[in-house]
Amino acid sequence: MTYCVGMMLNRGLVFMSDTRTNAGLDNISTFRKMSIWEEEGERCITLMSAGNLATTQAVVSELDERLKAPSERAPSLLAVPSMFQAARLVGETLRDVIDRQANSGQRADTAFNATLLLGGQIGDNPPRLFLIYPEGNFIEASEDTPFFQTGEIKYGRPILVRAYDPDMSFEEAMKLLLVSFDSTIKANLTVGMPVDYHCYTTDSLKTGVVGRVEGDAPYFQSISQGWGQALKDTLDSLAPFSFDD
Amino acid sequence: MTYCVGMMLNRGLVFMSDTRTNAGLDNISTFRKMSIWEEEGERCITLMSAGNLATTQAVVSELDERLKAPSERAPSLLAVPSMFQAARLVGETLRDVIDRQANSGQRADTAFNATLLLGGQIGDNPPRLFLIYPEGNFIEASEDTPFFQTGEIKYGRPILVRAYDPDMSFEEAMKLLLVSFDSTIKANLTVGMPVDYHCYTTDSLKTGVVGRVEGDAPYFQSISQGWGQALKDTLDSLAPFSFDD
Repeated sequence: MTYCVGMMLNRGLVFMSDTRTNAGLDNISTFRKMSIWEEEGERCITLMSAGNLATTQAVVSELDERLKAPSERAPSLLAVPSMFQAARLVGETLRDVIDRQANSGQRADTAFNATLLLGGQIGDNPPRLFLIYPEGNFIEASEDTPFFQTGEIKYGRPILVRAYDPDMSFEEAMKLLLVSFDSTIKANLTVGMPVDYHCYTTDSLKTGVVGRVEGDAPYFQSISQGWGQALKDTLDSLAPFSFDD
Repeated sequence: MTYCVGMMLNRGLVFMSDTRTNAGLDNISTFRKMSIWEEEGERCITLMSAGNLATTQAVVSELDERLKAPSERAPSLLAVPSMFQAARLVGETLRDVIDRQANSGQRADTAFNATLLLGGQIGDNPPRLFLIYPEGNFIEASEDTPFFQTGEIKYGRPILVRAYDPDMSFEEAMKLLLVSFDSTIKANLTVGMPVDYHCYTTDSLKTGVVGRVEGDAPYFQSISQGWGQALKDTLDSLAPFSFDD
């Protein structure tokens, strides 16, 4: 499993992904699930992946190879004129990879599927955020649904739904996301620290703040421990239930 | 889907279940998913069900019929000498019902499966709480895992894990459960109000406080709205993230 969140704010886009991959419960590893393509002053595109690691790595490698050997038939992520075209390119690449693996006569215990989050900005167009399905089609974030989650979405969703605010600063968004990731990691062994993040500033057209938060980082520890206590205090602060009503 | 929680406290057992059943998204109804059997001064047993409604209703009906026509081969819930025997009886009944439906030559789009939560107290023995699987086997709650959830467990789990305390009063437990149910109901359409509850007091050996909380009840509304705001405030109270660390 995996947990990734992409979020649209008024000031830009925030991406966060965990790093745990597992082939069974007795075989876990750490892999980066976030890739960034940039042409400074012109575009910055971030991709996060959930699903079969062989599939998602193949998609990223294929997208990378096209940069080196661009052809008219298959434009590269640094050549497409819009984020919509970028989503289409990534979606087609994903579908092709899955198709190739699933129909190669090979069998696997697990599915070859993967789901991708793609966000970024190209030229004068506003930033856009897409959720791309294994079938290659995709949906776009909007004011009504300003963030997407993939992988193990349920444990960390209630706090996102309730505390998301498009006016948030990147610092506030990072705090919110770390709380959401902490709830997920506490509940699902197949989601794990460290987490990677990228905060992209609208109209900067270059990679923003990129980093990794380790599980033993003092700030994450303070969030992880503080949130539990804060939740208890919050519950205490609500009016008591009465059986007499 | 369904959401049920059974919880062991030092002062007794708390049960809460939602009431929504659905056959597809365009066919939803309200059904009680909680049953109570009582022999005052001697035993009180509560059963909550998640899964195929035809299966769970058949299980309850069969358990009821045995009360009226007890036989040696199949003792009734009011005759078994311990909660362990009660769990075995209910588990066998569940397995038989599923087996009968699944192997009758009939086909269904959905599975006939169901999962049950059974808790209560018989005579001098302490209260016990069981989670019963479709296969008829079961696990028992303990100090390490003092509550069980069935159905849509993920959205409402983080707050339970963090705020559960075996010393809670029934009022506090009700508040905690309503917050957990509210988070679930906000996220999953197939879990819905009203919710039924039963608070059983240890060694009372009779039905405790039983009731139903409606979705438009003022207290539930205040919890539902207050919790969202309180969560935001709680998040604000945590130390801010800094990119400079």
